[in-house]
This record gives sequence, C-alpha cells and structure tokens, in this order.
Amino acid sequence: MRIQGKNSRTIWNENDELYIIDQTTLPHNYVTVRLEGLSDVCHAISAMLVRGAGLIGVTAGFGMWQAAREGLERFGANGDLALFEDFMKEAATSLIATRPTASNLERAVRLQCEALAAGIASKKSIAELCALTKEKAIELADEDASFCERIGQHGKAVIEAIYERKKAEGKSGDELCVNVLTHCNAGSLAFVDFGSALAPIYAAHDAGIPVHVWVDETRPRQQGSKLTAWELSEHGLAHTLISDGAAGYCMQKGKVDMAIVGADCVTAIGDVANKLGTYHVALAAKDAGLPFYVAFPSSTFELSKREGFVDVPIEVRSEDEVRYVTGMTDKGELHDVRICPEKTKAFNPAFDITPARLIAGLITERGICPASEEGIKSLFD
Amino acid sequence: MRIQGKNSRTIWNENDELYIIDQTTLPHNYVTVRLEGLSDVCHAISAMLVRGAGLIGVTAGFGMWQAAREGLERFGANGDLALFEDFMKEAATSLIATRPTASNLERAVRLQCEALAAGIASKKSIAELCALTKEKAIELADEDASFCERIGQHGKAVIEAIYERKKAEGKSGDELCVNVLTHCNAGSLAFVDFGSALAPIYAAHDAGIPVHVWVDETRPRQQGSKLTAWELSEHGLAHTLISDGAAGYCMQKGKVDMAIVGADCVTAIGDVANKLGTYHVALAAKDAGLPFYVAFPSSTFELSKREGFVDVPIEVRSEDEVRYVTGMTDKGELHDVRICPEKTKAFNPAFDITPARLIAGLITERGICPASEEGIKSLFD
Repeated sequence: MRIQGKNSRTIWNENDELYIIDQTTLPHNYVTVRLEGLSDVCHAISAMLVRGAGLIGVTAGFGMWQAAREGLERFGANGDLALFEDFMKEAATSLIATRPTASNLERAVRLQCEALAAGIASKKSIAELCALTKEKAIELADEDASFCERIGQHGKAVIEAIYERKKAEGKSGDELCVNVLTHCNAGSLAFVDFGSALAPIYAAHDAGIPVHVWVDETRPRQQGSKLTAWELSEHGLAHTLISDGAAGYCMQKGKVDMAIVGADCVTAIGDVANKLGTYHVALAAKDAGLPFYVAFPSSTFELSKREGFVDVPIEVRSEDEVRYVTGMTDKGELHDVRICPEKTKAFNPAFDITPARLIAGLITERGICPASEEGIKSLFD
Repeated sequence: MRIQGKNSRTIWNENDELYIIDQTTLPHNYVTVRLEGLSDVCHAISAMLVRGAGLIGVTAGFGMWQAAREGLERFGANGDLALFEDFMKEAATSLIATRPTASNLERAVRLQCEALAAGIASKKSIAELCALTKEKAIELADEDASFCERIGQHGKAVIEAIYERKKAEGKSGDELCVNVLTHCNAGSLAFVDFGSALAPIYAAHDAGIPVHVWVDETRPRQQGSKLTAWELSEHGLAHTLISDGAAGYCMQKGKVDMAIVGADCVTAIGDVANKLGTYHVALAAKDAGLPFYVAFPSSTFELSKREGFVDVPIEVRSEDEVRYVTGMTDKGELHDVRICPEKTKAFNPAFDITPARLIAGLITERGICPASEEGIKSLFD
C-alpha cells in the first residue's frame, strides 16, 4: 500500500522489534507503534489499534512470537519444555479471546501451536522454538500479502468486464467509470497489504481502468470514513463518502455498478459474517439486480461452520461505540462526542450475517466461485 | 408530548408571538426560540431547527402568517391588495424553496394561498387577511395534532394484535414485550404533537401494552439518537439505540416484531419517500418476513405523483452533514467533529424511496390501508 508516497505494510518486523500502524488515530494522525510483548499485542487487537480479518490473524501470529520471547526470557534458552508449552498455551488462549468472530485469528494461533507442537516433539530448545514462531509469523504475513495480491488479480477481471460492457454500450467519459460500493474497510489496512475487497479496485485502477468507489461510513466505528477513505486517498483513487443508509439510494439511482466487501468468517455453505451493515448492502444490491461480491483469503473460511445465523458467534462490543463518535474539530483537537441523551442505552453487535443466496461470488486467492458448498469445494476441496 | 413532565407542543403561538423548539440543540440542550418574521421561519425550516413532515408544513403555515404581518406593516391595514398579494406570493415561493421533498410544506402554503385568494376576491382588508392567515395556521396545527392522535389509535391495534398473538403463544415476562423498530424521528417532534410512526407506540404504551423501541441512529443528522431517543425518554418509553447497519441483524436474530416509519411524501401508488436508510429497513423486514408499516397524516400524500423513483425529487443536502458529527464532550461542550480525511468528498441525499411492494400497510388518520392505488382509494377517494 502507498502511505505518504511510499510502499508500506500495516505490520512489520524491524531490527527484531514488532511495529504496527495505530489505526485508531487515522485518518487524523498517522502514528506507528512498537508492540512489546504479548499483552501489548492482545491490547492492540482488542482495542482495535489493528483490525480487519487478515491483519488480526497476522498480528496474532506475531503475538505468539512475542509470547515465545517472553517464555525464552523466563525459562532460558534450554529451559523446561513442558513449562514453556503451558506458557504458550496460555498465550494462545489470551490471543483467541481478544476478538470472538475473527476466523483468521483462530487459524493463525492454531498454526503457530501446531508448529510449536512439532518443534517440541522433536525436542527443539526454547531458543529454537522462539526462532520458529518468528519464522512462522513472517510466513503468515507474507502469505497474507501474497493471497491478497492474487485476490486483486482475480477480482480485477470482474471490474474489467463491467468496463468492457459499458464500452460496448457506447458509454464514454465519466459514464465509463466503474462505480464500486464498499462497506467498512477490507483494504490494505485490514490485511498486511493490498486488502481483499479493495485489492481488485487497486488492481483495476493500476491497470488503467477508471474506477470510482462509494465508501460507506460504517458506523459505529466508521472504518469506511476513517480508514477506507484514507487509504484510497493515499493511493490516489477517486471516491465519495456516503452515510450507511445511502447505499440503497445510490443503487436505486443507477450510481453503482457492483458492490464488494470483505469477510470476517465464511462458512462451508458460503454464508458470510462481515461488519454490521453488510447485510443491508447485499439486500439492496439484490433488489437492484446488482452483483454483490465478497473477497477474502481462504484463511477466512471456517468450514466446520455451516448456517451463518446459527453457527457464527457474533461479537457484541461496548455500547459507547454507538453512543459516542470520535473526530477532529476544526481546531485540530480530537474529541469523543456523545450523540444521544446521557442515559440512552445502546446495543452494539459488531457483525451481521449475509446469507449465501445474496452473494454473486466469492473472490479468493484461487479464483472466483459461487457462494455455495459446491462452489467452495470446486476451488478448495 | 411530555417535555420535562409537562404536556407540550413543538410549535405554539403565545401572546401573538410564534415559538418553536430548536431541534438542532437536542438532546443536549432544550431551547425554545421565538421566530420573528418570514426570514426567521425560512431559516428555521432550511437549517432544520424544525424538521419532520408535519412540523415543516405547520411551520410554513405559520410562516405565511408572519409574512402577512410584515405585509400589514409595510402596506397598512387598508393598503393596496394587489401589492400585498404579490408580496404574499413571494413569501410562498421562499417557503416552498426551503425543503424540496416535503409534501406537507407545499400543501400548507397552498392552503394558505387559497384562503388568501378567497379573501382577496371578497375584498377583505390587509388587516383582515392577516388575521385570516393566523386562523388558518392555527387550524393547520390543530388538524396535524388531531390526525396524529387518530393515527396513534389505528396503529395501536397493530401493536396490540402482536401482543395478543404473543400471549396466545404462551409467552410471558420480557418475551411479551412488543419490539418495534423505527428509523429517523417521526415522533411528536416531527409534528405538532403525538407524531406519526411513534403515535401508535405512545398509544399502546399508554394503554398498558409493554413496548420496546429499537431506535436507528439515522446518520447523517442522527434524528434517531438525538430526537427519537430524547422524546421516548421524556415519555418514559423503553428503547435501545442501534447503528443504522444493525436493523437487519436485530431482525435476523428475532429481536424485532415490526417496523414503523414516517413519510415525507407518499405517491398515488403507495411509494414512500422517507429519510435516507428507510429503504434498507424495509428490505430487511421483507427478508425476515416482518411487517413494515408507514404512518402519516393524509397531508403527506402527493397523489399527482406515481412512481416514487421517477416523480419524487430528492433533496441533496450539504456534504458536511456526512463529513461531520455534532455531539457533546464529557465536559459538556458541543463540538462538530470531522470523521474523515480533510479532503474527502461526500454525497448526501436526504431521502430514499421505499417501493409499495415492501410495505405491509399505510397507517393514516382514517385507518390502515394497503400500500397500493386501490388501497389508498379505499380510504381517500
């Protein structure tokens, strides 16, 4: 991703120290933060300094490395493996508890645990196991970036097809521009790089196809207005912010050609858990006869789950996220402002379920498939 | 409506002076404002000190009285009727220009103009014409309150039927409570009193039926969190605030029994223009098999219009309503905070169209009818 004109990632290891972008201060301030130890990593995930399906997973992967370093310090390079193993299991539990809906988080921690278990079985030292968690974390980060880049190439074809159709219809100028609506942030900031929903948009733009993005604000935390608008702007991509209630209107009025969103969890039958409000966008697209795509790396699948409504636990977050909005005054001061009476109670589910029947296709690193059990099996059997 | 424990209205004439509640400072400060002259009235409508279908109309009715008083002062009690007539026509044009989508506004001004034309034809003096506009304005206000009270009684039956069904299903305690979702504010604050969408809820509550209201925040101007939550709380009615994206989730999870919203314009075939985001609620209700009602006084009909998408002009408001949020800090300071990058552009349509096919029924002062040409004709032929 481009940040201040430079190619960047959202999480990186520099001189053996772990760094992230603090996404809670965007778009107003661009701040990088060093994470020291497991508790810093857990806090960064639960307080959403990092967020987004892919980035949560990769951060948890690095969290296991941070925990292993703490274990190395506590038990020594050749210390008791059983004690170290218990210590790492506790770390895994803490990491998984930070965000209950994210499947990439659970996967990254599980892969680290499997690598550790294999290392312990072959009697590696704690020093070697620590090095192994670092390697695995870097591998997970590189995999995430590579998968997203491939999602971009597969999804680009969908945007290109709309562009070619518009050309064939004799459209020109602004009318040739492909209008893509997105909800929340499934961009570079939600992954290590490229993003999932935004990757096809970046790929199309970089290939010279004119694209304009409708950016849903995405209350309560406003990942659309704060993160998606920021990263599209850093990349030089045309976009317009709308309130969450406006997606249907824009579709009614012919201002949208397609919608793409990301996913926090995709089940075996193609039901999708994604940011609250995604379901409304999918319903509006269906009613307007527009294609609604979901883009994600296969690490987001939870194939043991089937019915989204039944099987996917939905995280309920603090009511104050709904009751307050954070923003910047014209004097450059950041404030939390309350937008309801003082005693008003709120309910704040973080995700909703979009049933597979509303989805035109799943865009993954292996290609595009129908949102159905057979569709998914055709790519990932 | 109850405000600070007293029965109140949203607009009133006291010692021949016109007063309103400044709704832009709610819920943080309850402030009443005296409107002096036509320009104050126009500003109160366009800057949304008053808002909501009914209240806009009634305020415009009072605006014609304010204009007539100015005409009386300028031309004298027995001045030139032709000059006065031109002056009042200009006033009518200014009032209608304040909010392009509201049909009650156009109707109130038209009824005042018709009354004036009849008065001029019978050679009444400017003093008499001025008194006539005042009478007409008060008549429009009383009509609004009376229509809304009747909407409440008709709509109460729908809520009561759900309550009786739940009782028959053997539900008890909290499960017996009827959960109604509403969007924006179509409450007392949107009319002179009682409201349209909230009138059935108040009537049911006052009749001892347990009701809980899910309140959509309603970005960008947050009439849900700022006005609906405030007036429900003043009335002692149980409610919970949710983000606009949450309506579908709450319906998916069985937390909602029905939805009721207001309307800014209803066409001859039952298409409804209402606050942006209403269409999403209607789609989600349809998908969940829940009834979605629209409540409004017949002054909201524009029977010369048919296809909502084609015939109803949609007001586009300032992009800063999307880019900024107004709220109160914990120090009690009101601030406008920006929630996107400084250069981000936004698009801000104020309304959307809910097609008749998504609507379970129209609740009017004459009763409930299907959202169709025949249905409407059955009550208003």
